[in-house]
Amino acid sequence: MTCVFCAIVAGEVPSSSVYADDRVVAFMDLHPVTPGHLLVIPRTHAPTLGDLDPADASRMMTVAQELAEALRASTVPTDGINLLLADGAVAGQEVFHCHLHVIPRTPHDGLVIDAPFASPTRDELDAHADAIRSALDRH
Amino acid sequence: MTCVFCAIVAGEVPSSSVYADDRVVAFMDLHPVTPGHLLVIPRTHAPTLGDLDPADASRMMTVAQELAEALRASTVPTDGINLLLADGAVAGQEVFHCHLHVIPRTPHDGLVIDAPFASPTRDELDAHADAIRSALDRH
Repeated sequence: MTCVFCAIVAGEVPSSSVYADDRVVAFMDLHPVTPGHLLVIPRTHAPTLGDLDPADASRMMTVAQELAEALRASTVPTDGINLLLADGAVAGQEVFHCHLHVIPRTPHDGLVIDAPFASPTRDELDAHADAIRSALDRH
Repeated sequence: MTCVFCAIVAGEVPSSSVYADDRVVAFMDLHPVTPGHLLVIPRTHAPTLGDLDPADASRMMTVAQELAEALRASTVPTDGINLLLADGAVAGQEVFHCHLHVIPRTPHDGLVIDAPFASPTRDELDAHADAIRSALDRH
């Protein structure tokens, strides 16, 4: 199986490119959730967030920052921005070459991000914090 | 007005802390969308993504990567991860001290990220790419 994002990096599949450097490229999402929706991807294939070189992750983030500013300064309607990364099928990842979405937002644009917010006790929060810190320390 | 996240950084407001270094801190979201939901914030106050020091943005991303790995290795149920940053009220930002959400995902966890995906023509995509690239070049 060929990776479609690797094929875009290699120029074997067309893309509407916005930015490229030695680590990352950015191009228009083929199926935008709002007009102007961009993807920032590493040149080096990394299926998931855990596979991604931290230097590539850093660059993806700072390039997303610059693209967010560019969107706001552009003719593309942009009142806000969501950055979104989906890691794993259950999180909505469809292409297994790690990618960061840069999504311009306007009122009533149809993008819904919603959840039943919980209000745990401090003890419950501390128990989760302990569990995550333990795993972080073992890492 | 005091910034609640600055107060957390200063230790003036309690938080369930998971990680801290010279640039960023991470702690449990008080109103998690799923159990284990974390926030990564810069120590230095930056209301929006555009105000954020790129070095802080980089660190937030690499720390989010480590926290995602820790969540997967922890006892907190984690089959996938969403990273989410809301920049501006229309994008869902509520606290104006830039923050990156790290959200563990499991099937049927109640978090909905949905939109009416479009399928623009290549000409339409290229026009958006041109508009964004122009703004990027002016920057």
